[in-house]
Amino acid sequence: MSEPLPQVVIVGGGFAGLYCARQLRGAPVQVTLLDRRNHHLFQPLLYQVATAGLNAAEIAGPIRRILRGQRNAEVLLAEVVGFDLHERKVILAEGEALPYDFLVIATGVTHSYFGHPEWARLAPGLKTIEDALEIRRRVLSAFERAERETDPGRRNAWLTFVVVGGGPTGVELAGALGEIARHTLREEYRRIDPGDARIVLLEGTDRVLPTYAPELSRKAKESLWALGVEVRTGTLVTAIDEEGVIAAGERIAAQTVLWGAGVQGSPLARALGAPLDRAGRVLVRPDLTVAGRDDVYVVGDLAAIAQDDGSPVPGVAPAAIQEGRHAAANIRATLRGEPRAPFRYWNKGALATIGRARAVGEVGRLKLSGFIAWLAWLFVHIFFLIGFRNRIFVVLQWAWHYLTFDRGSRLITETALQWRAIASQPPPSPPEVRPALPAPRDLRPSGTGGGGR
Amino acid sequence: MSEPLPQVVIVGGGFAGLYCARQLRGAPVQVTLLDRRNHHLFQPLLYQVATAGLNAAEIAGPIRRILRGQRNAEVLLAEVVGFDLHERKVILAEGEALPYDFLVIATGVTHSYFGHPEWARLAPGLKTIEDALEIRRRVLSAFERAERETDPGRRNAWLTFVVVGGGPTGVELAGALGEIARHTLREEYRRIDPGDARIVLLEGTDRVLPTYAPELSRKAKESLWALGVEVRTGTLVTAIDEEGVIAAGERIAAQTVLWGAGVQGSPLARALGAPLDRAGRVLVRPDLTVAGRDDVYVVGDLAAIAQDDGSPVPGVAPAAIQEGRHAAANIRATLRGEPRAPFRYWNKGALATIGRARAVGEVGRLKLSGFIAWLAWLFVHIFFLIGFRNRIFVVLQWAWHYLTFDRGSRLITETALQWRAIASQPPPSPPEVRPALPAPRDLRPSGTGGGGR
Repeated sequence: MSEPLPQVVIVGGGFAGLYCARQLRGAPVQVTLLDRRNHHLFQPLLYQVATAGLNAAEIAGPIRRILRGQRNAEVLLAEVVGFDLHERKVILAEGEALPYDFLVIATGVTHSYFGHPEWARLAPGLKTIEDALEIRRRVLSAFERAERETDPGRRNAWLTFVVVGGGPTGVELAGALGEIARHTLREEYRRIDPGDARIVLLEGTDRVLPTYAPELSRKAKESLWALGVEVRTGTLVTAIDEEGVIAAGERIAAQTVLWGAGVQGSPLARALGAPLDRAGRVLVRPDLTVAGRDDVYVVGDLAAIAQDDGSPVPGVAPAAIQEGRHAAANIRATLRGEPRAPFRYWNKGALATIGRARAVGEVGRLKLSGFIAWLAWLFVHIFFLIGFRNRIFVVLQWAWHYLTFDRGSRLITETALQWRAIASQPPPSPPEVRPALPAPRDLRPSGTGGGGR
Repeated sequence: MSEPLPQVVIVGGGFAGLYCARQLRGAPVQVTLLDRRNHHLFQPLLYQVATAGLNAAEIAGPIRRILRGQRNAEVLLAEVVGFDLHERKVILAEGEALPYDFLVIATGVTHSYFGHPEWARLAPGLKTIEDALEIRRRVLSAFERAERETDPGRRNAWLTFVVVGGGPTGVELAGALGEIARHTLREEYRRIDPGDARIVLLEGTDRVLPTYAPELSRKAKESLWALGVEVRTGTLVTAIDEEGVIAAGERIAAQTVLWGAGVQGSPLARALGAPLDRAGRVLVRPDLTVAGRDDVYVVGDLAAIAQDDGSPVPGVAPAAIQEGRHAAANIRATLRGEPRAPFRYWNKGALATIGRARAVGEVGRLKLSGFIAWLAWLFVHIFFLIGFRNRIFVVLQWAWHYLTFDRGSRLITETALQWRAIASQPPPSPPEVRPALPAPRDLRPSGTGGGGR
């Protein structure tokens, strides 16, 4: 076999890219998967890392390890900056070029702040492990700041959490925040009651989970209220600043604002020169190739493609997996001299959790809610977690969590100095020395307080 | 009880500070523990986080949670910048003051680069979670860079790891690196063989683990060689730069240099105005108080105190725990109007691991090595891990690890951009486009290589 094999270069190791590579196992090609991170991330559980329920390593694993046994695949940690579609080369950040015969682009989407890039710093979104750790840091630090704050107005602002966007990410984040405030942190503070925290979920349309059936939106809203989350639908955010947000004309003073609202295509999409939709996603042909380039595929969240009924294929993990596999099948067909087939999305349903042991979902015509939906959610998510080890550890964490309300990953990793530099509120530096602490709250209903208070 | 209780302020939530607080449970005092991080860290296992064997959350837990049930204790996330010993106040970074009746300082030690602060950037040490994650990032990234490197000399430099200092930290780091290269990463790369990595442990004195018995030093050295670690004793490092180190007059080209050599007292020690030893630790009186200040204690690694035989109390976790408890006992004695007792260190022995399933240690006159020592090490470390949950998860991780050679936490968390900015080697940016990859290595002894190569 002295003839070199056709080179398939896949950019991005998310669901679409990884499943494409795996589907090419044993095919007469050499696969190179490029990613600028060394890990594949199970994004559906990322909100659990943000809310201290799981460790990052439990939902992410080295791509290299996942593909270790696939002899025709290799993995490179590299950043792609552009493409030479004429010469069939991928250009890397360090000026190197990688030739391809087939190119699969699966770089996904990033946050969109609807023309307000300055909001990014004030309201982090949730796409990467780093995002999740930043959200975790802000949430846990806010309770710490509240414990030290002597001014009641500012203390309330530290205890107010605004989540912008009522899609699955926003709903899951808000639900987990409700659980943290009401259960996880209970009894740990002496001057605040974490249960006083106010969690506000803002959604611009008239219901949360707008892509789900209306009755599930209603159930989700009820579950959120039961967890103490204020759900405000039909409420557009018009400003975010260091004091909070303005929504529907009203100011909400909040030191922690999280973003779950919009997405836009990865900037690499522009480098392709292909037509994009309004959100910057690549308008692909039915076979998932780019117009005029039979050898270039776009798959996963970055691909904009319609279902048979005209609605867009949603940006969810099952769609990404199906598209990645489909591109691989089309590459195999091309190598056999056969025509490429059009992609058809098979909607397996959708599930979203709301706090511990509640969820809503639909599977075909079946609509689920409550504990049953949560069990279905748990089963599906753990089943699809890549890597046997992770699956075991996640089940154990979940069991622990479920039994104890504890969250295992409550680390704020950063020096206090860095923390102060990043915190949205600059620290006061008055000339005189002030008392360090607010008054302790009365912890006991009776006057017999422990510890001699 | 309208009379306010005496205030005990403890600065630092490491072993010494935390055990001091716990020992004051039920005492007629109000305890405030200050730390600039929210977590207590089980430092003896930190090298496992650095070498991807454990998650950070498995060896660290919120201090607030650990003290949750202690009604006379509260925890504040705050940075201390100084003391007003006359007015009995602790000064916080934001200009606030916290009054005390008893002050316990337990802020530990930091790295010392022996008058070469510029080495800190080139050779990170291992004291905090952030240090561990930085070392992990550098080690895992080095293999990734080597896989992409076309120049053989530079590839070797990426595959060379130098550990400076042959004390327990250096020995444990070097052993774990040997294991990663020879076992964990095996089969995952296509162009390098991680087993070719060169790991060099440099020690200035004539043996590794110089505070242990000579026969244990010899056994540790043998175990390290068996793991493929080059051990060089009597070798002083005279320079560290971006190309590697110069040791005993010889240059070793290495892109990854780790520091396990010296420590110095926390900078807060100077703010006390008390006499310090050469390493900047506070020379305490036999009862652990500071000269001239009966109400100020220094405990843990920051305290310099001699044993009965004149040798210093070592900077290890058991000593810190004993000192923290002793300070608490002296505070209780003072409150009862009794005199303070002198501190006596009870040496329970020492244990150091070398890779998987090997260790050396001494308990009294008993000297252990090999698998038995490793089991002792495992038992002792897991027994002392604070928090029941962590203990279970660490045992499980260890069992997994032991059975599979896998390491569960191999995440490089950072964007490639940040990574390049921090990497010691600036990226080459040649005018012409270069081939991206070195030649694949021949993976099979026979010519039947999989995947059709």
